[in-house]
Amino acid sequence: MSDSPTGTAFRIANNVGEGRVVAAPVWSVDPRTGKAREQVAVEADAAEVDAAVRAAYATRGALADRGARARLLRAAAELLDAARDRVVEAADAETALGPVRLTGELARTTAQLRYFAGIVEDGAFLDVRISRPDPATTPPTPDLRRMKVPLGVVAVYAASNFPLAFSVPGGDTASALAAGCPVVVKAHPDHPATSELCAALLRKAAAESGLPEDVVRLVHGFDAGTELVRHPLVAAAGFTGSVRGGRALFDAAAARPVPIPFHGELGSLNPVVITEAAAAERAEELGAGLAASMTLGQGQFCTKPGFVLAPAGEAGDRFLSALTDAVSETEPGVMLDHRMRDAFLDGVRERAALPGVTVTVTPGAGGEHTVSGGVLVTDAGPLAEGGHAALLEECFGPVTVVARYASREEAGTVLGLLPGNLTATLHTADEDPEAPGLLADLTPLAGRILVNGWPTGVAVADAQHHGGPYPATTSLSTSVGGTAIERWLRPVTYQSTPQHLLPPELRDATEAGEG
Amino acid sequence: MSDSPTGTAFRIANNVGEGRVVAAPVWSVDPRTGKAREQVAVEADAAEVDAAVRAAYATRGALADRGARARLLRAAAELLDAARDRVVEAADAETALGPVRLTGELARTTAQLRYFAGIVEDGAFLDVRISRPDPATTPPTPDLRRMKVPLGVVAVYAASNFPLAFSVPGGDTASALAAGCPVVVKAHPDHPATSELCAALLRKAAAESGLPEDVVRLVHGFDAGTELVRHPLVAAAGFTGSVRGGRALFDAAAARPVPIPFHGELGSLNPVVITEAAAAERAEELGAGLAASMTLGQGQFCTKPGFVLAPAGEAGDRFLSALTDAVSETEPGVMLDHRMRDAFLDGVRERAALPGVTVTVTPGAGGEHTVSGGVLVTDAGPLAEGGHAALLEECFGPVTVVARYASREEAGTVLGLLPGNLTATLHTADEDPEAPGLLADLTPLAGRILVNGWPTGVAVADAQHHGGPYPATTSLSTSVGGTAIERWLRPVTYQSTPQHLLPPELRDATEAGEG
Repeated sequence: MSDSPTGTAFRIANNVGEGRVVAAPVWSVDPRTGKAREQVAVEADAAEVDAAVRAAYATRGALADRGARARLLRAAAELLDAARDRVVEAADAETALGPVRLTGELARTTAQLRYFAGIVEDGAFLDVRISRPDPATTPPTPDLRRMKVPLGVVAVYAASNFPLAFSVPGGDTASALAAGCPVVVKAHPDHPATSELCAALLRKAAAESGLPEDVVRLVHGFDAGTELVRHPLVAAAGFTGSVRGGRALFDAAAARPVPIPFHGELGSLNPVVITEAAAAERAEELGAGLAASMTLGQGQFCTKPGFVLAPAGEAGDRFLSALTDAVSETEPGVMLDHRMRDAFLDGVRERAALPGVTVTVTPGAGGEHTVSGGVLVTDAGPLAEGGHAALLEECFGPVTVVARYASREEAGTVLGLLPGNLTATLHTADEDPEAPGLLADLTPLAGRILVNGWPTGVAVADAQHHGGPYPATTSLSTSVGGTAIERWLRPVTYQSTPQHLLPPELRDATEAGEG
Repeated sequence: MSDSPTGTAFRIANNVGEGRVVAAPVWSVDPRTGKAREQVAVEADAAEVDAAVRAAYATRGALADRGARARLLRAAAELLDAARDRVVEAADAETALGPVRLTGELARTTAQLRYFAGIVEDGAFLDVRISRPDPATTPPTPDLRRMKVPLGVVAVYAASNFPLAFSVPGGDTASALAAGCPVVVKAHPDHPATSELCAALLRKAAAESGLPEDVVRLVHGFDAGTELVRHPLVAAAGFTGSVRGGRALFDAAAARPVPIPFHGELGSLNPVVITEAAAAERAEELGAGLAASMTLGQGQFCTKPGFVLAPAGEAGDRFLSALTDAVSETEPGVMLDHRMRDAFLDGVRERAALPGVTVTVTPGAGGEHTVSGGVLVTDAGPLAEGGHAALLEECFGPVTVVARYASREEAGTVLGLLPGNLTATLHTADEDPEAPGLLADLTPLAGRILVNGWPTGVAVADAQHHGGPYPATTSLSTSVGGTAIERWLRPVTYQSTPQHLLPPELRDATEAGEG
């Protein structure tokens, strides 16, 4: 893409002159073959990151116009929908997620942009609170009027597994722009061409909406990502990715002279508990349902159910049998990149080598570029005793761990040892006496609690919460749904401020009904 | 106090046996003389901190009862009011803040406890959001019901300068208990006896309300504070104090294997801008008003106006003259402790030694234990050029820096160099053409913006915001006002959950109007 939309000048990869550093090339790679497709850009150096942040920073004033923000979000949705074939083709070539999934992901992404346009227009996110003067309090209460204002430039770290919905045009960008914050996106190296295409469309949408194009900037490169979170003019960050990468950036955000909020979604086991009654009632349905959820998108969902407590005994056996049958019937698939494929196969091997762990489907069978789904099975006993810690860590890819519990107490003990999660799921039956207690055990573990469902598929809705105790997220916020906008705002209270100096949203309503 | 309410056994300070570590004594000290009054307790070691946290943790279930929480907060207010004379006497003996101020602070503290009782009963803080199923969205929206739940044990680090309102029975404790979180308070060493007395009253209130006394625990000691923020069962922390101490604890909170939110209020200059028009209109009133605000409580308020941009020229001269006259007439006073007094005098000396800085009142004149108020004056020019950095750092105590600006541009340049603040104040006149622009310059600097007022005195109200950009606070939240409760809550969404398994607040309203 020689017409780089982010202004990154193309430099020849080997152009080393006196005192010049090599500009590392950014390649688009086909995960179906492992081969490079094209050079998309070069990695941004510190000066380029600085320029991107400063350019974005300069657009804050223009973004203060809520009407323009709503127009921008709707225009972006229109342009992305209009470019659907190109976007899906680019994303599929780089991620192998397939056109059906990616067409759906694009629909979700553009709906999300329009959803945040509505939130901007509605204005409830400003969380206006007004306290009238009251001389009787200690100390006396003056006229106080509070609302939320944008934080400033937001750094968005795109995800590997959702090249659209959690990347350049995704939820972090949509919610940050809705809040009035310019965005600098650090592209994910798994889909740089898709990132450039989407950034160009967002910048075009800005221009069409009367806003500067630099409300969105894009940078590539690992070091650029580190520079970004350290930049003094970056006010907050959103991240979706691994525990290791996310924690490093979280630590950098916290270690700044002026620390900034870092909203990272790092990793999640997404535990599922199947009660004896649920297994007795619908073992086969549960097995098939779990297989579909855990292999969806090659198991590359943040909400993949990766740990299942299933009862020992006959009903649990039937469930496990249905699960392994269904998983064994799924086609091998291509993961997002070969590094992930290697990590997946290593992770499965490590877990399968633990004493007492059996592999009922061999994950990893497939060709040189593909993987198959798999199921690891263990008794819950060793886990309840604090062993087999690797089974309580996320293994990214199409594998789940089924731990067979012998008693309610054993299941509860294991739940008490789990790290934080995005989701926790209970499968129960009508009038199941275990349900209330298990739900109480699950609630501390996650940000979303499901009953008789599967956690993959995260609706964009007012009541959604996609976040949870660490390492699921590094903050208490959500990255999906209407309240995601809260991440990019801070409250400001105006005290005893004359009407004409107040922001319009805080003024008294006039006779004409304004205010 | 041999009947230590927190269960810390008294040990003899010099009781060193084989392998036993000395238990460091905690002394109550009279700041009016610098002499020890009594040994109040001993510092908690790691095992005692652990025991305190575990005891508090065990009360979470009991605190889930919102009615009991409201009763607890009201009972605490009643007991504190009933013990007013004892509480004020203890606090005055340890802080020298005087009975008038402390009686007012106690009234504010008990009003704050009752205010949070009302917030608990009202329930709006649960921020319930419900999304009905919608199969037309991508992905489809299931039944989603979100509310906020308590985080867990909250560590509260008490302030030196508000032995009641920002200490054991203060806003952090009140808002955390209101949220349903047990509290472990780390007492401030400047008022350990007051802390013990207040903790005993809070624990008695718990017992009277049918709650375990351990919903509030108290620990003493610097090392205990560090242990506390690192404890795995501590879920969040609130802090009011210095930049150095607060940043160290913030760093410890961020470096945990599982990082936790750290809501620290660290330091604030609280800049004031006086326009030419305001000075021309009421120079004398402004000088007297600033003098009263900056010397209130010996200048030991977090919101003390510590940096004032005043115009060069005749009107500004009159303002400065009125200010210095008023400050020179204030009586010398006793600071909270001698370490603070030393730091204040050192801080003033350091700033006064800068080239071009004049001292119009000599701060520090007074007896061995007292200090007087002072005013440092400089041209804004060196500041606008990036010099005199010490003048842009808080100097805790009764001193303010007046920077005389030659132009609107110079004032704006200096404002752009200021760190984050709790408050920023504009003094303006009717139809002052500079007002809108200056207000726009001040808004990014602080969490509360005042027009024609003084920042000391923080009303407890729904629309209050007592927080601001770092170092004013380490988070985006407030420590005063109704929304302070948000610090101790996290959202949880229940998906497709049957009515009988939902928390009562999320159920559909029944025909009888419940729910």
